[in-house]
Amino acid sequence: MTSVGKVYLVGSGPGDPELMTVKARRLIDEADVVLHDKLPGPEILGLIPEDRREDVGKRAGGEWTPQEYTNKRLVELAREGKTVVRLKGGDPFVFGRGGEEMEHLAANEIPFEVVPGITSPIGGPGVAGIPVTHRDHTSSVSFVTGHEDPTKEESAVDWQALADTGGTIVVLMGVGKLPQYTQALLDAGKDPETPVALVERATWPDMRVATGTLESIVDVRDEAGIEPPAITVIGGVAATREKVVEFLANQTGEWDGEGEEE
Amino acid sequence: MTSVGKVYLVGSGPGDPELMTVKARRLIDEADVVLHDKLPGPEILGLIPEDRREDVGKRAGGEWTPQEYTNKRLVELAREGKTVVRLKGGDPFVFGRGGEEMEHLAANEIPFEVVPGITSPIGGPGVAGIPVTHRDHTSSVSFVTGHEDPTKEESAVDWQALADTGGTIVVLMGVGKLPQYTQALLDAGKDPETPVALVERATWPDMRVATGTLESIVDVRDEAGIEPPAITVIGGVAATREKVVEFLANQTGEWDGEGEEE
Repeated sequence: MTSVGKVYLVGSGPGDPELMTVKARRLIDEADVVLHDKLPGPEILGLIPEDRREDVGKRAGGEWTPQEYTNKRLVELAREGKTVVRLKGGDPFVFGRGGEEMEHLAANEIPFEVVPGITSPIGGPGVAGIPVTHRDHTSSVSFVTGHEDPTKEESAVDWQALADTGGTIVVLMGVGKLPQYTQALLDAGKDPETPVALVERATWPDMRVATGTLESIVDVRDEAGIEPPAITVIGGVAATREKVVEFLANQTGEWDGEGEEE
Repeated sequence: MTSVGKVYLVGSGPGDPELMTVKARRLIDEADVVLHDKLPGPEILGLIPEDRREDVGKRAGGEWTPQEYTNKRLVELAREGKTVVRLKGGDPFVFGRGGEEMEHLAANEIPFEVVPGITSPIGGPGVAGIPVTHRDHTSSVSFVTGHEDPTKEESAVDWQALADTGGTIVVLMGVGKLPQYTQALLDAGKDPETPVALVERATWPDMRVATGTLESIVDVRDEAGIEPPAITVIGGVAATREKVVEFLANQTGEWDGEGEEE
């Protein structure tokens, strides 16, 4: 009889392979199989031999949703006695459905371990010279996803309450709905001059940063052509980058603002 | 003439040396000098040879505050041409004054780089089986420090607004003021049955977890003898641990609840 294997729910960080944890690097070397989607990014996926990785992000057929398929596959492989790494972009528990995968494993009596990763809404702005907290600007920071449409009545995100915290607001996956939630924050009474930064492909070699205000950032996005994946940072801290960027040694591509005033 | 060196603002993660990034591990090996306080924890500090590390957390004399002294020392060493690692617990930009150090470096024309770390308010609960976000419970997560007294009028943290977000609230350094801010959240209308978890010495070998509700957690803290450093997680996600802990392979010490009902 095969004894049951083990599943590691592992965060791969924002994309730079050197920003993986020592433990994540060890586990992807030791695992029998690594289940992943596209989110860890090409550089990190390139570290794993193809015969030991399985892409659960795209599949032929449609009997299961991707999440149901992933859950099922994790249990299946563990029951074969395999050591399985479920590799997730960023941290497994920050808007990544890692919680659901963990519950599914426990419900099926599969031993598992959680290996946190650098979450892109902190690490991405960080390498770009934007601290999500700063004594001069904020005493709290809130993270939300921008997937939901804030004009829908059933939107679960309370933009009024987020505005009222007075703290930094960081929006993940928030490029597409930027006009809606910036308007929601303006309607909630946020100062139109509140600094906003967009960090595209955080920590990837082709990372780009564009900055503006709550009022201007939609135009900035359009003129810079910022596309997903990107992080939106809203609050006084977003203006910090300008003060330091000249001496920021790991700065990467920055939109030069050409056409901003057109 | 000596050319100016470089400063790396590096997060060491929550305390487990394997949860450092590959880059942080490389940099502490390569640096001429590592400036640190106690927060990275004994296991990580033990990796750095004593002749290459400098504790800026405690000093003889009192001419400077620790922060002023650290700022001055970073500039001094870089001007000597040194490669300097400023090693900070968790992530340098999550309530760690990394933003101030970065601005001081830029103002003094010192090249610097930011190396994010696993932040303990995400990674700590994570290894304990508590996802700070979960589709079933929350669409946002907010981080605040518990240092401030919420009964003071000038408290910068708006507990009413945080309660109104409906999202997970994670409090750093929040053991001492637990009675004050749990009361503030109850006054703000949060359900007394809201699950709460305390994660003490997150990811350290002697980590402990204690769970209760918004109404019971102060008694739980007292009976378990939870002490700083600890993370407080408030919200439905805090109850996830109970569902999964039996299969959580990296679980560490847990308070057994003895005396809870006394």
